[in-house]
Amino acid sequence: MSRKASFTVPGLTEETGHQVAEALQLRLHAMNDLQLALKHAHWNVVGPSFIGVHEMLDPQIELVRGFADELAERMATLGVSPSGLSGDLVANRSWGDYPEGRADTQTHLRAINDVYTGIIEDHRAAIAKIGDVDPVSEDLLIGQTAELEKFQWFVRAHLENGSGEIK
Amino acid sequence: MSRKASFTVPGLTEETGHQVAEALQLRLHAMNDLQLALKHAHWNVVGPSFIGVHEMLDPQIELVRGFADELAERMATLGVSPSGLSGDLVANRSWGDYPEGRADTQTHLRAINDVYTGIIEDHRAAIAKIGDVDPVSEDLLIGQTAELEKFQWFVRAHLENGSGEIK
Amino acid sequence: MSRKASFTVPGLTEETGHQVAEALQLRLHAMNDLQLALKHAHWNVVGPSFIGVHEMLDPQIELVRGFADELAERMATLGVSPSGLSGDLVANRSWGDYPEGRADTQTHLRAINDVYTGIIEDHRAAIAKIGDVDPVSEDLLIGQTAELEKFQWFVRAHLENGSGEIK
Amino acid sequence: MSRKASFTVPGLTEETGHQVAEALQLRLHAMNDLQLALKHAHWNVVGPSFIGVHEMLDPQIELVRGFADELAERMATLGVSPSGLSGDLVANRSWGDYPEGRADTQTHLRAINDVYTGIIEDHRAAIAKIGDVDPVSEDLLIGQTAELEKFQWFVRAHLENGSGEIK
Amino acid sequence: MSRKASFTVPGLTEETGHQVAEALQLRLHAMNDLQLALKHAHWNVVGPSFIGVHEMLDPQIELVRGFADELAERMATLGVSPSGLSGDLVANRSWGDYPEGRADTQTHLRAINDVYTGIIEDHRAAIAKIGDVDPVSEDLLIGQTAELEKFQWFVRAHLENGSGEIK
Amino acid sequence: MSRKASFTVPGLTEETGHQVAEALQLRLHAMNDLQLALKHAHWNVVGPSFIGVHEMLDPQIELVRGFADELAERMATLGVSPSGLSGDLVANRSWGDYPEGRADTQTHLRAINDVYTGIIEDHRAAIAKIGDVDPVSEDLLIGQTAELEKFQWFVRAHLENGSGEIK
Amino acid sequence: MSRKASFTVPGLTEETGHQVAEALQLRLHAMNDLQLALKHAHWNVVGPSFIGVHEMLDPQIELVRGFADELAERMATLGVSPSGLSGDLVANRSWGDYPEGRADTQTHLRAINDVYTGIIEDHRAAIAKIGDVDPVSEDLLIGQTAELEKFQWFVRAHLENGSGEIK
Amino acid sequence: MSRKASFTVPGLTEETGHQVAEALQLRLHAMNDLQLALKHAHWNVVGPSFIGVHEMLDPQIELVRGFADELAERMATLGVSPSGLSGDLVANRSWGDYPEGRADTQTHLRAINDVYTGIIEDHRAAIAKIGDVDPVSEDLLIGQTAELEKFQWFVRAHLENGSGEIK
Amino acid sequence: MSRKASFTVPGLTEETGHQVAEALQLRLHAMNDLQLALKHAHWNVVGPSFIGVHEMLDPQIELVRGFADELAERMATLGVSPSGLSGDLVANRSWGDYPEGRADTQTHLRAINDVYTGIIEDHRAAIAKIGDVDPVSEDLLIGQTAELEKFQWFVRAHLENGSGEIK
Amino acid sequence: MSRKASFTVPGLTEETGHQVAEALQLRLHAMNDLQLALKHAHWNVVGPSFIGVHEMLDPQIELVRGFADELAERMATLGVSPSGLSGDLVANRSWGDYPEGRADTQTHLRAINDVYTGIIEDHRAAIAKIGDVDPVSEDLLIGQTAELEKFQWFVRAHLENGSGEIK
Amino acid sequence: MSRKASFTVPGLTEETGHQVAEALQLRLHAMNDLQLALKHAHWNVVGPSFIGVHEMLDPQIELVRGFADELAERMATLGVSPSGLSGDLVANRSWGDYPEGRADTQTHLRAINDVYTGIIEDHRAAIAKIGDVDPVSEDLLIGQTAELEKFQWFVRAHLENGSGEIK
Amino acid sequence: MSRKASFTVPGLTEETGHQVAEALQLRLHAMNDLQLALKHAHWNVVGPSFIGVHEMLDPQIELVRGFADELAERMATLGVSPSGLSGDLVANRSWGDYPEGRADTQTHLRAINDVYTGIIEDHRAAIAKIGDVDPVSEDLLIGQTAELEKFQWFVRAHLENGSGEIK
Repeated sequence: MSRKASFTVPGLTEETGHQVAEALQLRLHAMNDLQLALKHAHWNVVGPSFIGVHEMLDPQIELVRGFADELAERMATLGVSPSGLSGDLVANRSWGDYPEGRADTQTHLRAINDVYTGIIEDHRAAIAKIGDVDPVSEDLLIGQTAELEKFQWFVRAHLENGSGEIK
Repeated sequence: MSRKASFTVPGLTEETGHQVAEALQLRLHAMNDLQLALKHAHWNVVGPSFIGVHEMLDPQIELVRGFADELAERMATLGVSPSGLSGDLVANRSWGDYPEGRADTQTHLRAINDVYTGIIEDHRAAIAKIGDVDPVSEDLLIGQTAELEKFQWFVRAHLENGSGEIK
Repeated sequence: MSRKASFTVPGLTEETGHQVAEALQLRLHAMNDLQLALKHAHWNVVGPSFIGVHEMLDPQIELVRGFADELAERMATLGVSPSGLSGDLVANRSWGDYPEGRADTQTHLRAINDVYTGIIEDHRAAIAKIGDVDPVSEDLLIGQTAELEKFQWFVRAHLENGSGEIK
Repeated sequence: MSRKASFTVPGLTEETGHQVAEALQLRLHAMNDLQLALKHAHWNVVGPSFIGVHEMLDPQIELVRGFADELAERMATLGVSPSGLSGDLVANRSWGDYPEGRADTQTHLRAINDVYTGIIEDHRAAIAKIGDVDPVSEDLLIGQTAELEKFQWFVRAHLENGSGEIK
Repeated sequence: MSRKASFTVPGLTEETGHQVAEALQLRLHAMNDLQLALKHAHWNVVGPSFIGVHEMLDPQIELVRGFADELAERMATLGVSPSGLSGDLVANRSWGDYPEGRADTQTHLRAINDVYTGIIEDHRAAIAKIGDVDPVSEDLLIGQTAELEKFQWFVRAHLENGSGEIK
Repeated sequence: MSRKASFTVPGLTEETGHQVAEALQLRLHAMNDLQLALKHAHWNVVGPSFIGVHEMLDPQIELVRGFADELAERMATLGVSPSGLSGDLVANRSWGDYPEGRADTQTHLRAINDVYTGIIEDHRAAIAKIGDVDPVSEDLLIGQTAELEKFQWFVRAHLENGSGEIK
Repeated sequence: MSRKASFTVPGLTEETGHQVAEALQLRLHAMNDLQLALKHAHWNVVGPSFIGVHEMLDPQIELVRGFADELAERMATLGVSPSGLSGDLVANRSWGDYPEGRADTQTHLRAINDVYTGIIEDHRAAIAKIGDVDPVSEDLLIGQTAELEKFQWFVRAHLENGSGEIK
Repeated sequence: MSRKASFTVPGLTEETGHQVAEALQLRLHAMNDLQLALKHAHWNVVGPSFIGVHEMLDPQIELVRGFADELAERMATLGVSPSGLSGDLVANRSWGDYPEGRADTQTHLRAINDVYTGIIEDHRAAIAKIGDVDPVSEDLLIGQTAELEKFQWFVRAHLENGSGEIK
Repeated sequence: MSRKASFTVPGLTEETGHQVAEALQLRLHAMNDLQLALKHAHWNVVGPSFIGVHEMLDPQIELVRGFADELAERMATLGVSPSGLSGDLVANRSWGDYPEGRADTQTHLRAINDVYTGIIEDHRAAIAKIGDVDPVSEDLLIGQTAELEKFQWFVRAHLENGSGEIK
Repeated sequence: MSRKASFTVPGLTEETGHQVAEALQLRLHAMNDLQLALKHAHWNVVGPSFIGVHEMLDPQIELVRGFADELAERMATLGVSPSGLSGDLVANRSWGDYPEGRADTQTHLRAINDVYTGIIEDHRAAIAKIGDVDPVSEDLLIGQTAELEKFQWFVRAHLENGSGEIK
Repeated sequence: MSRKASFTVPGLTEETGHQVAEALQLRLHAMNDLQLALKHAHWNVVGPSFIGVHEMLDPQIELVRGFADELAERMATLGVSPSGLSGDLVANRSWGDYPEGRADTQTHLRAINDVYTGIIEDHRAAIAKIGDVDPVSEDLLIGQTAELEKFQWFVRAHLENGSGEIK
Repeated sequence: MSRKASFTVPGLTEETGHQVAEALQLRLHAMNDLQLALKHAHWNVVGPSFIGVHEMLDPQIELVRGFADELAERMATLGVSPSGLSGDLVANRSWGDYPEGRADTQTHLRAINDVYTGIIEDHRAAIAKIGDVDPVSEDLLIGQTAELEKFQWFVRAHLENGSGEIK
């Protein structure tokens, strides 16, 4: 059964609308993988700064889960069936599992910083690609990027010294 | 008495600001007519799926009423008096009354789907027209379009089959 | 398709129930027009007392929208399909559009006072007519009239002087 | 021990007050039986529209439980001990148990529609009887009838077709 | 300066509207005196059942203060200036101060029971007098009477024995 | 039509699951009868300690109504149609109506104490019987018993003297 | 029966404690009269600035009612029965009724300003008198004075011009 | 780096505690996969009953996400590092991806019913295995199973007919 | 390790600040012992007035726990380590355990009255001692005393007769 | 006066019920001592990680205070008077005061870890002892143990390194 | 120490990211100065329309404080240390202090109108400058501008006459 | 235009009242500068303990902004126009800008500790000066000092070692 419906949003051609939707599928996989990785870190972080980092992750996880929801419902709105399944995610992602298990806070924060750099670059690439044809999807991605970048600042602020160098 | 004030928002010329505002007047009429039509459907829908559709409409009506408020206050901000009156609405709209009275859920959902297609196309046309001169009004319309398109997906999801065809 | 169903509320004859419902249709149009006119005033009022009057209108608008909902759902309960559409409203009302555009607070309050006088007289006439046959619909209209009269006092209190004369 | 106290509300004779209270006892039994029957339906409804009907019943049950409370406390206020016991209810009611067990939504809605017709007729009869002597008790019953009739409309709207015929 | 304005509510003659308002003035004084007396009892009650009675009075005081507000605003709506002043109250009331100072709970409850009997009789008399000309004011008084009677039941339930005799 | 479905919860045989469900039916009748009896006491209690006992009963009634809901939905989950009807309750219970009408607080509390002793013994018997085969249903009954025993302590604490004897 | 109990707060002699309490009685009467006068003004104010002044009074009334409660419960705590009755108030106050009926906002605000000047002077006098013997009662009065003075500023800010002169 | 810490909960041997934790790992993977599959269905369901099923899934997803959290934090408490990563999940699960894409409600509900049967059987097996050594982990799994079984009833109630057969 | 830090609050000498803090240590022990004694009474009170007294104690316990927190954090602020431990409390207090076990309400209220007399006298003595050097700590103790005295009034009001004698 | 009442919960013999209650007394003392020790740590912790640890303790203290309440009310329910007094606690406990005063976060966390190990071992021993005779008390202790173990994990996570060793 | 970190947001070059951040510094100073000026006006406004204007400013101040927070955190996210200090603000701003002290409402509203014209022009200039390189920062500024322009309309609506001329 | 009005609070001479107000102006500047400095630190803090310190500052900033509001409104109440402007602040303060930019948590906490020492000394000096003439302003400053000192303890607790020495 085709993942593409016989319609898209009014004002876009069916072909354009479906292309925008297809471009969002990997963003959806990225958000689903990110919520899992952040929860995993939430459970596995240890060390003297445990409680602050443990608690800082939960509101971000809520946000990221909401971003997955936005992306998937936007795909459906554009007329393409979204995939939110783990097997499909693992088969199609261009990255591997989050690399840390039980580890201290700074180790986890460094790993999370790396994850965010990749995700934000991809979000910005999607903004550039989609922006010309669908300002609604573009606006959705810009809003998500703003929050992802702000959280990366939270992470980096733990790693930074007074000179602004990431240790 | 002139509907245009002797000012507009800082950074736009008075003429430009007033032109943007004028372009919003029909969008305001559309939102006012839409809130009435959705309430009308809310009261007149019948059949075995009554309760789900009846309740699904109310949050959307609240949203649309808020959109009318945003548009009218944006017009006033830009220096043009907004009209929110029923006689003015009926005299100036390019469409007729919502076509259904008491009818089953699928009949109403099909009629609502048609209404949304028209409204969203007009919103997208206004975005294209206004975007170059006033990013603030553009952003307002993009945000409304996103919600209108999402609700249209809710409506279409009732009409769709597994192959993505609207029945 | 007939607007009248093959039933009405238990305890009333079908004919009586439908007559009561028909009597509520114009009350419904009046409430729908009133919510639009009050919002219109909310957007168009200007002058040194702007903020107080601008904010005083919103809770009343919420109330009036709720009154429209009550009336329409009562009509449906009595077995007659309610009409909440703008074209139908304009075609059947016995009054014209609210007369003011951008104007100062006292001008708007005087116009609103006039609107309320007409609406309350019609509500009281409907109470007198319906009261003998359906105490439930009567009670609904009495409750609405109490609130409409109280708001009219708010409006008049702005126009009154210490001697109780409307200026 | 007598169920009647040596007082009633001020402004009514003791005999009149107690007669009004006695007239409320069967209304109390009806409300107690109705809350049980609606919960029973809530648990036993099945079929593709399960979730909507299952959830629609709960707020009504809360309301009906509140109506029983109002009626019983009004009886006590009027000076007569109210009975809220199941054995007394079953011994004195003029109707039998709700007729359905596990059944699909339309079957349950049809049965509920029948139950409401009986209850509302009896409420309206009590209003007619009590209204001349105690406007406070009358007002209480009118308020309950309004809500019961509105819920019956919810039920009927599931059974109706576009022509307003109950299927 | 005249207490009567040059208007009343639409649908009533000025003379009738003002007569209804005048009839509400003593009800307003009664509510103002009642809120003071109940607070006085709240502060002066003593004995082993102190806490239950002390706390039972506060929600009723809130209600009675709201009743005074309703009555006064209804008077103003009907076009007569309401008086809420203590000197005017004492000069015009037909009753004296609440008779108890520091006393045990049963003594206070007996005194409150007597106060309520007088107030409710007067409320019912006003309902009878006003009901024919102004259903809105009548409805307001019926609603207040229902609550006052219910609270009197609370009071009486403390004084009653199992045979329904007030001790 | 059979009360038993063609399924039960995964991990239990259909026969076992249905037997567990059948064992819950009388517990459901007991909870339904208890909510009615407690409300009846709530309305009929009198005397100097009225307010404390009157108010103490309501949160327990809410809890017991929730217990009935849990039991009935557990039965449905296990594949047996639950009965929540008054006639069925009265025909199948092994006890009679609650014995008190209007009476003072200590009389009602003694009667409630007796009711709870019976209900808790039956709940504990059901725990013993069900515990070996279905830990989920057992856990549900243990949780309810804990709350029922805690409320019985509230009741007994009114009847106890300093030596721990029930008067 | 004596208004004085056979105790006062620990750490004060019975005579001192009762003297402090007596000094609070007139403050209690002042607060009770003030809540009535402010509500009276709330109902009788008219003119173009009606809504702002009408709404500004209500939170202050809530506060003043709370101050009466604090003073009365402090008197009881100190072992003297507080009087909150209207007849006693009128017989013992050193001031007359609030002088205005229906009047415009500035007239009412000027009258309220005068009332506050008197009340605050008396509160400050009581602070000076009580402060040496009971820091707890002193602290209570200081807290009330702070709020009364702040509200007087609200009132005066309406009457002031840019030079700080009360017009 | 070892996933096992040098401690476990007090009262269990380190070996036993770690074995219990290991047994929870697959339950954690199952919950993580279930939250993804339910969201996937939430996005892909279509047809006339869309809105009811779409909304019914979200509270369950919240619950299942909470269950994953409980399980992972219990593993950490028992001294074993939990894995919440998608690659690890897919490599170790004994089941495949949820089988449906865009499809009507009954198709999705049938697929979800199958998923729950597998998960509940595995939860019950874990209860049986763990119950003898760690009542705390047992209690956690019983509580989760109760909720999973209740939701499966919701699903089945859509598929059942009046005879209790799953269609 | 010294309990005194090398600092105190700005504006006080280190010696003075530490002396104030030391004076608060026994007040802290008193509050900790009081929260335990009040909970003990909450659990052990019996008799016909059980529920009112049982529930009256809980908000006071919350308050007293907050007072302990305020005192301890004030000590830390002043530069002295506070002790909140039971052994230290028992070793340093000048009073014994609360004297009652299971007992009726009046017995417990008399015992609580005695406890409060002692605690309030000590609080007032500390106010007198500290007031000259640290107005911040003085203000904290005055605020606590006000609440403790108010609650003692609640207790005494149960024991008082109409003549103000404690029975 | 005997601590044992002449009753216990229905379904247990008086002797058995009282034995279960006696076994809970030391658990109650442990919870009371734990709330005091955790607050003491909350006030005395210092160092660069102060704020996280200071704030992490408060929700746990609330929980532990609730556990004391549950245990004491369970004892009363089972018919034995609970002791919550400090002198009794110190005289009967098998442990000494918490060993730390002002100290850095890691020192406090190590001490708290030790305290929890002792308490949890005793709770598990009580579960084993009570479980055979009273599933209700067993369930209460299991629920408390789950939370105590989870908090100990929070504590340990601060002390652990990536290899799972407590430093 | 350099204000610039060794990173910026992913997808921008470090140089570009830092330039965007630098452009936001003056917007941050403007927002900080605006919150101070609006509070200053809130305190210094006088005259008959005092209360409406006094209260209208507070929600705007909350908003503007949030805008400062957004801008500063965006700067930090982009890798440049934000300055929020008063001395730095005064040294670097291109405008002077707000010109009014105590003055009537129209005077303050005219001064605020002027302040907003300057700020909005600068915000729009920053949007034009930043929009090409960083859509995230652009979106943030557009959102702020929308709110600032809407509030300026509130201000202007007080100054406007019916012809739309600012008086 | 004079900053001094022709009035002050009742009970103080105009001269005294204005002197008290003048003494509060620098306290107002200090609070305004403190809210800016704390936000600046909130944005510029970095290092492994980032999140705890970042979040700890926000509630204090809210409090300090409220203190500025209290002081300014107290000045207006006393009849002197308060200045809340940045230029005026910088010209009149006796201190310089907060000394840190981007820096680690301990550096910022040490700088904040120094700022608080200065502010609290000045607050205490103002209390000493004002206390004799205006207990209301004194009480306001005492309340603020208590909170400022408590927050300084939070700051110091991060800098302290177990011996109570600030590192």
